[in-house]
Amino acid sequence: MTGTECGERLAALARLVEDGLDRLFREPCDTRLFESMRYSLTAGGKRLRPVLLLAVSDAAGTAPEAVLDFALGVELIHTYSLIHDDLPCMDDDELRRGRPSSHMVFGEAGALLAGDALLNAAFELMFSCRGTAPENVLAAGAYFARCSGREGMILGQSLDLADAAADAAARERLSRLKTGCLLEGACVSGLLLAGVRDEARLDAARIYAQSVGVAFQIRDDLLDAVSTPEVLGKPVGSDKDKTTFVDLLGPDGCEARIGALTDRAAAAAELVDPSGFLAALARRLAERTF
Amino acid sequence: MTGTECGERLAALARLVEDGLDRLFREPCDTRLFESMRYSLTAGGKRLRPVLLLAVSDAAGTAPEAVLDFALGVELIHTYSLIHDDLPCMDDDELRRGRPSSHMVFGEAGALLAGDALLNAAFELMFSCRGTAPENVLAAGAYFARCSGREGMILGQSLDLADAAADAAARERLSRLKTGCLLEGACVSGLLLAGVRDEARLDAARIYAQSVGVAFQIRDDLLDAVSTPEVLGKPVGSDKDKTTFVDLLGPDGCEARIGALTDRAAAAAELVDPSGFLAALARRLAERTF
Repeated sequence: MTGTECGERLAALARLVEDGLDRLFREPCDTRLFESMRYSLTAGGKRLRPVLLLAVSDAAGTAPEAVLDFALGVELIHTYSLIHDDLPCMDDDELRRGRPSSHMVFGEAGALLAGDALLNAAFELMFSCRGTAPENVLAAGAYFARCSGREGMILGQSLDLADAAADAAARERLSRLKTGCLLEGACVSGLLLAGVRDEARLDAARIYAQSVGVAFQIRDDLLDAVSTPEVLGKPVGSDKDKTTFVDLLGPDGCEARIGALTDRAAAAAELVDPSGFLAALARRLAERTF
Repeated sequence: MTGTECGERLAALARLVEDGLDRLFREPCDTRLFESMRYSLTAGGKRLRPVLLLAVSDAAGTAPEAVLDFALGVELIHTYSLIHDDLPCMDDDELRRGRPSSHMVFGEAGALLAGDALLNAAFELMFSCRGTAPENVLAAGAYFARCSGREGMILGQSLDLADAAADAAARERLSRLKTGCLLEGACVSGLLLAGVRDEARLDAARIYAQSVGVAFQIRDDLLDAVSTPEVLGKPVGSDKDKTTFVDLLGPDGCEARIGALTDRAAAAAELVDPSGFLAALARRLAERTF
């Protein structure tokens, strides 16, 4: 698949996600709580996680529309995690996607509850997915919740507080947990929702997602080291107290590691998505400049 | 059902819940995050919400053991809500169930993540419930998540921040959201898990749960006005900046309202639970002294 074709497919799937979110949050904003949820959800973003789920599910024979509710839930979980990550007691970031963070607008308690409400709404959406067999929804939901929870993303957030990353291997482990696990949850859920139980394909989805996730985080650290707030939409060097991949590997080492991980992702993608979209997407993400 | 029989049944169901929680959290505590989840879950408490779910489900013909995983998820959601409620940006309570609150032991970020992890684990448990038909689990999960989310409990927490309760009716609305909705989620889920879709029975479960919930909160306010920290296991008058039912109705008015709500709960219970346990439990809760 060419880069242009990949871009078009990415845009089409992301549009599906945007339309779905619009539909959910179009009703009149009757409470401050609802407004706070919408504020963070409509701040933009790549919609990468739901797009991955939809692409994987489609490649396995289940149309994106059939599992869209579940995919929207995945984006809500990503959004809640950013709100809680930005809180003063966590990373204390005042800017997110070019706008004031949730707690700068709604206060700390408001941001806490916005995140909690998004997390509950996410699972409500997942439980409401009716486009595939109920047992597929249960399998995907249980898998995703494990990835987003105490053995996955939240463990990563917890370890990150302690800055336990003394070397590149430890830093990669942290990235697998904090970033890779949600991507893994999205990709594996896409297969489970489509009824796939073949371990080789589930494993390939895991390898793809985790490789893309770590490469994504290395690229983030590189961009953070050389970019400006205007381009990134957040303060640069905001994690300056933490050890980054650039500190550990140097810029050239980072580029080499991104290349190796992307090759690994592209190879694993063949078993999950014969269309070539996932492989092309991995390369596109590896080369992004913002 | 006599008070003694009600007490024995309550103890048996609560034991089932305790054993289930023990099983989940018995493994070696390998992370600070896991330790923080266990700390709050094992602090005791009445296990009222999962007990209600198990009793309702049992009365509808589905054995407690078959839906225990779902019921444990309900208790995890209750526990997460207490942790987040106690945070400095919320009620700022230093004591919970006679022990230091989560953030006093694990710090604010640690308590935030403990709550988030319990919420994710709760839904993982619900998705993993295999003792009834998958479509029953999906129906119950979607219903419960709505009760715990932006139209239910979290809306109540959000409105409570603004202390919007100027009269007894507004204060009751707040209690229905903050306390009643989780009880409603537990009771209605119990029916949905057992395959019940009859609107009259679902409505009776809602009326029962909401009546018990508001009566529970009025009793809480009364106990808070006259008790000591040793008895309650938390600071008395900790909500002293907020308008309580005692302020609005006076002690006698509170007792009268508890009596009326409990009668309403007991009447509704007949349609949900012919054994008489739910009705006896409503009276037991109304008369509690701690």
